Amino acid sequence: MAKDKKKKKVETEEPGKKKKKKARIKSLKREVERMRSQIVALSEKVPAKTPVISPLAPAAGFPALPVIEGAEFAAGEAGVRYRGRPDVMLARLAPGTTIAGVFTRSATRSAPVLDCEAKLAATPDPEAGAAIVVNSGNSNAFTGASGAEAVKAISAGLAEAAGVPEARIFTASTGVIGEPLPHERITAVLGDLTERLSPEALPMAARAIMTTDTFPKGAAAVIEVEGQPIRIAGIAKGSGMIAPDMATMLAYVFTDAKIAQPLLQRMLGKLSDETFNSITVDGDTSTSDTLILAATGKSEAPEITDLRSAAGRAFQEALRGVMLDLAQQVVKDGEGATKFVEVAVTGAASPADARKVAMAIANSPLVKTAVAGEDPNWGRIVMAIGKSGAKADRDLISIRFGDILVAEKGWVAESYAEEVGAAYMKREELAIRVDLGLGKGSSTVWTCDFTKRYIEINADYRS
Amino acid sequence: MAKDKKKKKVETEEPGKKKKKKARIKSLKREVERMRSQIVALSEKVPAKTPVISPLAPAAGFPALPVIEGAEFAAGEAGVRYRGRPDVMLARLAPGTTIAGVFTRSATRSAPVLDCEAKLAATPDPEAGAAIVVNSGNSNAFTGASGAEAVKAISAGLAEAAGVPEARIFTASTGVIGEPLPHERITAVLGDLTERLSPEALPMAARAIMTTDTFPKGAAAVIEVEGQPIRIAGIAKGSGMIAPDMATMLAYVFTDAKIAQPLLQRMLGKLSDETFNSITVDGDTSTSDTLILAATGKSEAPEITDLRSAAGRAFQEALRGVMLDLAQQVVKDGEGATKFVEVAVTGAASPADARKVAMAIANSPLVKTAVAGEDPNWGRIVMAIGKSGAKADRDLISIRFGDILVAEKGWVAESYAEEVGAAYMKREELAIRVDLGLGKGSSTVWTCDFTKRYIEINADYRS
Repeated sequence: MAKDKKKKKVETEEPGKKKKKKARIKSLKREVERMRSQIVALSEKVPAKTPVISPLAPAAGFPALPVIEGAEFAAGEAGVRYRGRPDVMLARLAPGTTIAGVFTRSATRSAPVLDCEAKLAATPDPEAGAAIVVNSGNSNAFTGASGAEAVKAISAGLAEAAGVPEARIFTASTGVIGEPLPHERITAVLGDLTERLSPEALPMAARAIMTTDTFPKGAAAVIEVEGQPIRIAGIAKGSGMIAPDMATMLAYVFTDAKIAQPLLQRMLGKLSDETFNSITVDGDTSTSDTLILAATGKSEAPEITDLRSAAGRAFQEALRGVMLDLAQQVVKDGEGATKFVEVAVTGAASPADARKVAMAIANSPLVKTAVAGEDPNWGRIVMAIGKSGAKADRDLISIRFGDILVAEKGWVAESYAEEVGAAYMKREELAIRVDLGLGKGSSTVWTCDFTKRYIEINADYRS
Repeated sequence: MAKDKKKKKVETEEPGKKKKKKARIKSLKREVERMRSQIVALSEKVPAKTPVISPLAPAAGFPALPVIEGAEFAAGEAGVRYRGRPDVMLARLAPGTTIAGVFTRSATRSAPVLDCEAKLAATPDPEAGAAIVVNSGNSNAFTGASGAEAVKAISAGLAEAAGVPEARIFTASTGVIGEPLPHERITAVLGDLTERLSPEALPMAARAIMTTDTFPKGAAAVIEVEGQPIRIAGIAKGSGMIAPDMATMLAYVFTDAKIAQPLLQRMLGKLSDETFNSITVDGDTSTSDTLILAATGKSEAPEITDLRSAAGRAFQEALRGVMLDLAQQVVKDGEGATKFVEVAVTGAASPADARKVAMAIANSPLVKTAVAGEDPNWGRIVMAIGKSGAKADRDLISIRFGDILVAEKGWVAESYAEEVGAAYMKREELAIRVDLGLGKGSSTVWTCDFTKRYIEINADYRS
């Protein structure tokens, strides 16, 4: 047969041959067409590659941040783990700056967290000024005794370079855990960073603290008190408290408000509960979560001495806005996230019960996968309420998607149509609202959906 | 241009044309070849279709179950939701049978669960006999007042068909929630099922209660007490407490042991904690979880009257084995599962702390995705310990993969090599062992990994 074919090939072309060739071309074209459809169909099924930027990133990009008098920033490349990108940020804060902090509640807190907690508890003199240094690429967590040594080395190095006492130097590290932090790479660049400090460099700092974040996170507010502006500017990094190797949420907020440390700390604690502690990507908690608020006191506005005063309330509201904006950006950069979800619970027997229910819904893999699949699966919300441990009475619960009443009186609402729920689930930003009908307890938390990308990112990270 | 082309087409073929056609064929062939490679490459990236059976299913298949004297079974097709497969099971238990039950702790428990709890609390006379009826396809949960009505209708129907008082009829339903249970389809087949009751039909019952389970689950044990056999046979369904629409874990265990109800209930509660309550697929809890243990008392062995007696201990150990086997099979059929993981925590300050740590590890999406990716990412275990809320001291924790010491004294173990950990993670069955170095509290739980299949199954279920 093969021989025959070969023979034919060398023959001169005849009219029948011509037809055959035409038919061959036609058939090949059909084959190509068929394969093209197959490729299109297959491509749709193949998991998408990492998006360069989360689809939920703010459309307007990184915001303009006001200059905070008394605060200077620099970012540089220490090469801790990453190459060719900034991985260390420095903030120097003028004498008079008061500092408050909130940290992870993890029992396996990292060395920098333990150090910050100890330094804040000692409440040293604000007149000495302060500094913050943060590196990405290595979290200096679970690094035995070498962890504290690295913190000490960086603090000592920066004390020398920036002229700030060690007791007022706050460090943070984010990245892989269990590997000794090459602190000498950081101390080597501190002199250079100190020389380059600038009030304008906060956006650079936002980039230097990123790990697997797909966009830098910033937020700002300006209020007026007695005709004088008070400015607030903050940065954060997140990516779900989760990667690489579990990563971290870090947030640094700066203001020129004048406010004593105990008041600042009280305010930060309260606002953290309503913002950074009310977000969840996967329910997992980093060993390194750090939130620091520094108030330089350089504003011309009068000192805030009472949180219930008009100025106190206005400042808190503005600070809350900045913190919530940053926290929500962390959720919107949750690994693999395609939907942003607000879970609002009202009518609980207590605020603690409301929070239990909200977190049970926001952390339920079943609810989060239903959101990813745009499935108005309210049954899974009922399940999450039931398992939360909060007091609940099936017949008093009502569930809404946005304003759409879905279930009430222990059953699907009479007015509810599945198509309406399904159409609502196609939105990028969703609200799940639950009223337990028992009391006045309420709680709102924010989360994202749970997609195949999350598994890909976290299953394949080191393999 | 277009005109020119058309003109050329009607020209008679010239030698140059011939060459062009040849080239065209060659190029089309290349195109087909290129596309074929692309299709192969894409096909490899497309997530696999649902496996017919979980890769973790017992290699030996469904086990042989001993006949339990005094217990008869039947399975049939009621067409509640599924077509062409058994979806209802009936068990009739002889007079003298004592019955114990353990149910979901969900605050939104289904109507059948509430009914079973009430009937068990009333401790009616065992001499009346008893019956169990279970349907799959619809969970009769969150169905308002119609839920209890459906339970009542089925109980009344079965009381008539099987001659057992309603107070001794225990029902369960598993499947979609929020849809009224078409109970008339079930009552319509109860007469036929009663006629077909057989001591041999328990394996059929195991199939009838399946929802998205990929294999039926059975386990058995036989012990001898004073030369007389006591037999235990059980069935379960699971698929992760999760689908479709959150589904359920159901387990029914039958024995011919003679044992009074209060003792039976005490034993079941204790053993549930070590078995069914020590497994987790996704941390989500069904509204319908039900475990019933029925003891017919037909064995010739003497009555068990003391759990600390030799016979009491032997029976408990055998029952524990059956329950653990069933519970582990539920994990092995977890949606998308490719790995079976034992998490064993020792050295905790209390048993409750040990359980907190074990569950935090077993439910951590980060740990579970690392297992799916065969990544020996012990940092995520440190994170889970830290967030668990249990007392922990970083420097006293040790972590092992099987017998491989991974981390101790607050750092990676000197003897640990990443390659060894990576090789271990390739196994299908893994053990993560944590010693907290604080006290005597210990706890072991079982879970599976978290794969893209889980997301697929749960995101796409109703869409």
